[in-house]
Amino acid sequence: MSLPTVDLRSDTVTRPTPAMLEAMFQAQVGDDVYGEDPTVRALEEQAAARFGLEAGLFCPSGTMTNQIAIKAHTEPLSEVICEQTAHVYLWEVGGIAFHSGASVALLPGDRGRLTAAQIEAAIRPLDNVHYPDTRLICLENSHNRGGGSCYTLDEIAAIADVARRHNLALHLDGARIFNALVATGQRAEDYGKYFDSISVCLSKGLGTPVGSVLLGSKAFIHKCRRIRKAMGGGMRQAGFLAAAGLYALEHHVDRLADDHRRARQLGEALAAQPYVEFVLPPDTNLVIFKLTPEMPADTFLQHLEQQGIRASSFGPQMIRFVTHLDVDDAMVQRVAEALTGVAVSLPG
Amino acid sequence: MSLPTVDLRSDTVTRPTPAMLEAMFQAQVGDDVYGEDPTVRALEEQAAARFGLEAGLFCPSGTMTNQIAIKAHTEPLSEVICEQTAHVYLWEVGGIAFHSGASVALLPGDRGRLTAAQIEAAIRPLDNVHYPDTRLICLENSHNRGGGSCYTLDEIAAIADVARRHNLALHLDGARIFNALVATGQRAEDYGKYFDSISVCLSKGLGTPVGSVLLGSKAFIHKCRRIRKAMGGGMRQAGFLAAAGLYALEHHVDRLADDHRRARQLGEALAAQPYVEFVLPPDTNLVIFKLTPEMPADTFLQHLEQQGIRASSFGPQMIRFVTHLDVDDAMVQRVAEALTGVAVSLPG
Amino acid sequence: MSLPTVDLRSDTVTRPTPAMLEAMFQAQVGDDVYGEDPTVRALEEQAAARFGLEAGLFCPSGTMTNQIAIKAHTEPLSEVICEQTAHVYLWEVGGIAFHSGASVALLPGDRGRLTAAQIEAAIRPLDNVHYPDTRLICLENSHNRGGGSCYTLDEIAAIADVARRHNLALHLDGARIFNALVATGQRAEDYGKYFDSISVCLSKGLGTPVGSVLLGSKAFIHKCRRIRKAMGGGMRQAGFLAAAGLYALEHHVDRLADDHRRARQLGEALAAQPYVEFVLPPDTNLVIFKLTPEMPADTFLQHLEQQGIRASSFGPQMIRFVTHLDVDDAMVQRVAEALTGVAVSLPG
Amino acid sequence: MSLPTVDLRSDTVTRPTPAMLEAMFQAQVGDDVYGEDPTVRALEEQAAARFGLEAGLFCPSGTMTNQIAIKAHTEPLSEVICEQTAHVYLWEVGGIAFHSGASVALLPGDRGRLTAAQIEAAIRPLDNVHYPDTRLICLENSHNRGGGSCYTLDEIAAIADVARRHNLALHLDGARIFNALVATGQRAEDYGKYFDSISVCLSKGLGTPVGSVLLGSKAFIHKCRRIRKAMGGGMRQAGFLAAAGLYALEHHVDRLADDHRRARQLGEALAAQPYVEFVLPPDTNLVIFKLTPEMPADTFLQHLEQQGIRASSFGPQMIRFVTHLDVDDAMVQRVAEALTGVAVSLPG
Repeated sequence: MSLPTVDLRSDTVTRPTPAMLEAMFQAQVGDDVYGEDPTVRALEEQAAARFGLEAGLFCPSGTMTNQIAIKAHTEPLSEVICEQTAHVYLWEVGGIAFHSGASVALLPGDRGRLTAAQIEAAIRPLDNVHYPDTRLICLENSHNRGGGSCYTLDEIAAIADVARRHNLALHLDGARIFNALVATGQRAEDYGKYFDSISVCLSKGLGTPVGSVLLGSKAFIHKCRRIRKAMGGGMRQAGFLAAAGLYALEHHVDRLADDHRRARQLGEALAAQPYVEFVLPPDTNLVIFKLTPEMPADTFLQHLEQQGIRASSFGPQMIRFVTHLDVDDAMVQRVAEALTGVAVSLPG
Repeated sequence: MSLPTVDLRSDTVTRPTPAMLEAMFQAQVGDDVYGEDPTVRALEEQAAARFGLEAGLFCPSGTMTNQIAIKAHTEPLSEVICEQTAHVYLWEVGGIAFHSGASVALLPGDRGRLTAAQIEAAIRPLDNVHYPDTRLICLENSHNRGGGSCYTLDEIAAIADVARRHNLALHLDGARIFNALVATGQRAEDYGKYFDSISVCLSKGLGTPVGSVLLGSKAFIHKCRRIRKAMGGGMRQAGFLAAAGLYALEHHVDRLADDHRRARQLGEALAAQPYVEFVLPPDTNLVIFKLTPEMPADTFLQHLEQQGIRASSFGPQMIRFVTHLDVDDAMVQRVAEALTGVAVSLPG
Repeated sequence: MSLPTVDLRSDTVTRPTPAMLEAMFQAQVGDDVYGEDPTVRALEEQAAARFGLEAGLFCPSGTMTNQIAIKAHTEPLSEVICEQTAHVYLWEVGGIAFHSGASVALLPGDRGRLTAAQIEAAIRPLDNVHYPDTRLICLENSHNRGGGSCYTLDEIAAIADVARRHNLALHLDGARIFNALVATGQRAEDYGKYFDSISVCLSKGLGTPVGSVLLGSKAFIHKCRRIRKAMGGGMRQAGFLAAAGLYALEHHVDRLADDHRRARQLGEALAAQPYVEFVLPPDTNLVIFKLTPEMPADTFLQHLEQQGIRASSFGPQMIRFVTHLDVDDAMVQRVAEALTGVAVSLPG
Repeated sequence: MSLPTVDLRSDTVTRPTPAMLEAMFQAQVGDDVYGEDPTVRALEEQAAARFGLEAGLFCPSGTMTNQIAIKAHTEPLSEVICEQTAHVYLWEVGGIAFHSGASVALLPGDRGRLTAAQIEAAIRPLDNVHYPDTRLICLENSHNRGGGSCYTLDEIAAIADVARRHNLALHLDGARIFNALVATGQRAEDYGKYFDSISVCLSKGLGTPVGSVLLGSKAFIHKCRRIRKAMGGGMRQAGFLAAAGLYALEHHVDRLADDHRRARQLGEALAAQPYVEFVLPPDTNLVIFKLTPEMPADTFLQHLEQQGIRASSFGPQMIRFVTHLDVDDAMVQRVAEALTGVAVSLPG
C-alpha cells in the first residue's frame, strides 16, 4: 500500500516539521553543563514564565523531569500520593522507589482524577513510626490512563489547599498539560499558583524530537540541576533540541484543538461499531476503548495493521488511539473506514 | 481500680512467663556475629526444621526478617506483589522502597487473602521497558488487617504454582503463622514446600520479648546474613533472647487455641452491641470491628480505658482487639461486661 | 587443656557477669515500640545525660546506631567525610551507600585520627553540580583500626568548629568511647558540646550482651526512631537488654583501666619478640602489631590456638589482641608466656 | 578584542562543524523508545562492532552510560573498585552510592592507572559479613585526572585476568578512549576482549553536541535499556544526535593526533615558564600543571581571560588545558605567547 502509515500508538512518534527543523538547524548553542547554551536558557525561561513559575530545567525526557521532581520533594522513608494508574507510578519503571526510596499511596481516581478529600484521607498520621512520612502529591493532567481527562481549576485549587495545610509539595506531571489547557480554556499562568513543580513535555503533542522542561522556584530548580547531573541528564550543546521546544511553544499549542476534534471524530466512529463495548469520552487527544469479547484485541490490531494503521494495546481488550501532529483529516477518515471494515469481518 | 489492665492493643505486649524467664537466664550464649551462640543456632535450626526449610536467621524484629527477605529476593527496579493492606507494605515504614528500591503492585484481597488468578494478572510483561521487573510475591498468614484471616493450603499451592511458572520468589510474612496453623490444623512442615522464605515471629502470640526468625534455603540464609549485618541486626550474645524462642516453640504454640476461643467470645459480645456495625469473623486471635456513627471511636476507647481495658484504633471507626498470653478468661469476662456498659451510655 | 580459652579476638565476646545477669533478670519491661519499656527509657535517659545530650535511642547494634545517624544527617547525593579505615566505612557492609545513598570522602588519618585542616580541605565546593553535597563528618574515638588511638578534646573542638562553619553535622562512632574517656581522663559530658550525635556501644568494653545507644537532640532522636523502625530495630520487651546497659554504666566503666594496663603488658611482651616487626602503642585496650615475614600470620595464630589463645588477623601479617572483662591478669601472663614459646619455634 | 575566544576548559565545549550539522539534519529518525530510530540503531551497531562487542545503547551523557553500567553490574551491598580520582567516583555526584547503593574501594593510581596487583589486593574476602561484596572494577582510559595518561594493552590484560579469576565485571569509562587509541596505536576491537562494558563518549574529542554509547553483550545491553528508561534517558527522535556520532566516528577520530600534538606544544610552552612548578606529561589532549606559590591560580586565570583564553582550575594551584576540535594551531600560538606574557607580570 502506498498510503502513509497512520501511527496512532502515541503522540511521541511525531517527526519535526520542516519549519521546526529549520529552527533547530539555526540554533545558537553552548555547553549547557556550564550553563552556557543560550537556546536552552531561553527555553527554560520562556516555559517558566508561561506557567507563572520562576525557573526551568531542560531534560531529555518527561520521565527524568518527573523523577527529578519527586526526588527533590522527598527523601527516603517519605511517601508520595498519586493515582493508582499515574504515569509516575505505572510507567516509569518503579522510579519512585528506585530513585527516591519513597513509598507510594495509590488512590483510585475518576478516570485518573483524584479529589481533595481522597488525598487528605490518605495522608499518614505524623507521629506513628510505622508509617512513611507523606511529603508529596503528584497529579497528572490531562491523565493518560484516564483517556485524556482533565481537572478543573477548582479541583486543583482544593487539592493545593490540602497540600498547603499539611505542608506537602504538589507536583504536576504535565506530559499533556497543553492538551488540558486547550481543551478547558484554562490559562497556563494560573498553574504556577497551585503547583510547586510542573513537568512540561515537549515531545508529545507539541511535536519536538526530544525533551521536557521541569519548572519550579529558583531554589527548587537549583537543587534539581544537581540531581539532573547525577541522573546523567546534563547534556552539552542541547540547544538544537531546545530550539524545537521554543518553536513548538509558539506554533504548536493552539493547533492541539485540531487533534482534539479528530479524537472526537474517532470516538464517534468507534462508538458506532458493534465490537466496541465502550469508549472513554475523548476529552483531549486520547481515545481509549474496550473491545467486546467477540473481538480479540490482537485480531483487531492486525486488521488495522493491514490497513496501514497502528495502535496500542492498553490492557486486556483495551485499545488506545492518539491523535497528533502527524495525523490529518484524511487519515482520520481512513481510520473510520477501516473500523467499519473490521466490523464486516466479525463472525455473523 | 486494683484490677490488672487488660491490654488488647496487640499480642506484642506480653511479658515472659516465669518459666520462660528462667529458660532465658539459663541460656548458653556466645558471640552470634561470629556464629558462636549455641542457643541462637539451636533456635534457627529448630525453627527451620519445623517448617521444612534448611536454615534460619534470628533477627530483632519481624520487620527486619521481612525486609531482609524482600531485599534478598529482589533488586532495585524489581516489583513486589502484595495485598494492599499487607504489613510489609503498610506498616514497615515504606521499607520495600527504602531498603530494596523495589516498586509494589498492590492488590485488593478478600480480608487480605489474594488469589492465584489475581496475582498472575498483576505480573508485569517482561519485555516492556516501562515496567519494573516482577520478582516476588509476599503473602501474610494469618492476615492482620484482614482480621486474622487464613489461607487454605490449596490456595497457597495455587499461588506457589504461579510463582514457579513465572520464576518469582514467594515469601510468607508469618507474623502470626502459628495462629494460622492452630486455627486451620495445617502442618508447619508443609509450608516449606511452597514458600522460598518464611518470617516467623516469636514476640507476638508466642509471647517472647524480642525476635523473629527468617527461614529459607542455606544459600538464601547465607545471603541474608550479610544483609542482616548491614541492617544492624547482628547481635552479640543474643542467646538470652533465642532461649525464649526455643521455650515458646515447645510450650506456647498449642495454647493459641485458647486465644482463638477468647477472640470468638469477644466477637460474640461485640456482635450483640447496638453500637457495633459489624465484626470481622474472628478466625484467630484478632477481632476487628466497626462502630456505628453514633459511637465515636475516641469515646469508645475512653470508656474502655476507664475500665482498665486498652485497645487500638484501626482506621476510621474501626477498632482492633487482640487476645494473647496475658489475657485470661476472667479478663474476657470483664471486657464483655464493659462492652455492655458502653451501650448503656449511648444517647437514647 | 583444662585452662579456659583466652579470647583476644574482640571485646564483643564477653558474657554477662552474674551480677549483670541478675540485673537483667530483675528488669521491669514493656513494649518499647510503644515507648513503654521503663528500663529502656531509663537507659536512654541516663546515657544521654552522661554525654550532655538530650535524648537516646536503644538499638540492637552499633552498626545500627551509626547507620541510623548517618541516614538522619544526610540524604542521597550527600557526602560523608571519614577516615579511610573508619568502622562506619570499612566494616559496616558499605552501609553508607546502601542505607543513605551517600558518597564517602575517605581521608588518611594518623592512626585513624583526622585533623581539622584535612577535613576542611575535603569539603566539596557548594556550587559545582559534579559533586555530592558534603553534609556529615564521622569520627571514631578510640579508633579501632588505629589501634585504640584517642583524640584530644582540643582536636575535637577544632573539628567541631569546621563542622559549624560549614554547616555540617558531626557524628561520633563511640564503639569504644569509654575506653577513650578512661584513657585520657576526659569527661563524657564535654562530648555533647561538640557532637551532634554519638553512638555509644554497650556490648564491647562494657560487657553487655547486646546493644548500643544513639544520642542526640530530641528532634534528632525523634527522627531516628522512625528510621530504627524501618531498619527493623524496634524491639518489644528490650528492657532485659537495657538493664545490662544500666548496670554496665554504673559498674563497668572505671574498670576499663585494668583492660588498658593489660593491653600495655601485652604490648611490652610483643615488643620483646624477634618475630614482631612493630606494635602500635596500646593506648587503650587494643594491641595491633605486625609480624615479620619469617612468621606467617596463620602459623602464629595456630601456635596461640594450641595454647588456648584466640586472636584475629587484621590485614596482611597484622594481628589484633583485645583485652576485656573476660581477660584477667593470669591470662595475660599465659599469653606472654605463649608469645615467648612461639619465638622458640622460629626457624634458627 | 576581535580574536575568537580560545576555550581550553574542556573538549566538551565544541560546536558541530558545518559538515556534522548537515549530517544531523539529514538524519532519518523514529521513536527510539520503541526501538524505531534507524540512525540511533546504526550508531549503536557501528560503535559496538568497532570495539568488538555485541550491542550498544545511546544515552544523553557519559555520566549516564557509566552509571547505568555500574548499576547493571552490581547490586546494593556490592563494592566497586576504582582509582581514587576516577571520574565515576569523583565527578558523577556520588552516583555509585546514589544509583547503585554500592560502596567504593578507592585506590591510588599512577596518574590514574591501577595495577592488577593493587586491584587484586583490594578484593574483599567473600565470607566475611562485615564487607560488601566486590563485583566490579572500573578503569578510565585515558585518565582525566591523571592528565590523559593511557594504559598499555598488557596492563589491561592483566587486570582483566584478575577480574575473570575473581568473577568480577570490568567496565571501561571511555570518555576519552579514542584519545588513548590514537596516542598508543591500540586497536579498538581489542578492547572487547577485555572489557564487559565500555562507555564511549561522543561529545568530547569527537566533537558531537550530545551523547555517549554504552557497549556490551546483547544480554547486558538488554538489561541496561530498562535502566536507561528508569533514569530518564529514553529519548524519542534521538537520531539527530546519533547522526553526529556516526559522522564523528568516520571523520573525527584520526584528527585527534592534531589535538595531541597541540597539547604537547602547550606542555612545552608551560614547562619553560618560571611560574610553573611541573607539567604532567601531555600524553593525549590534556595538559595538567601546577603553578608555583608565587602565581595564585586566580591571578593566572584572569591574565589568560584578558587575552581571550579560558582554562579550568583543577585543584589547589592546579590548572588544566584541553585541546580539541575548536583549538587550532594559531590559537596554540596565541596561548604560548600569553603564557610568556604572564611571566613578565610576575613580581621581580
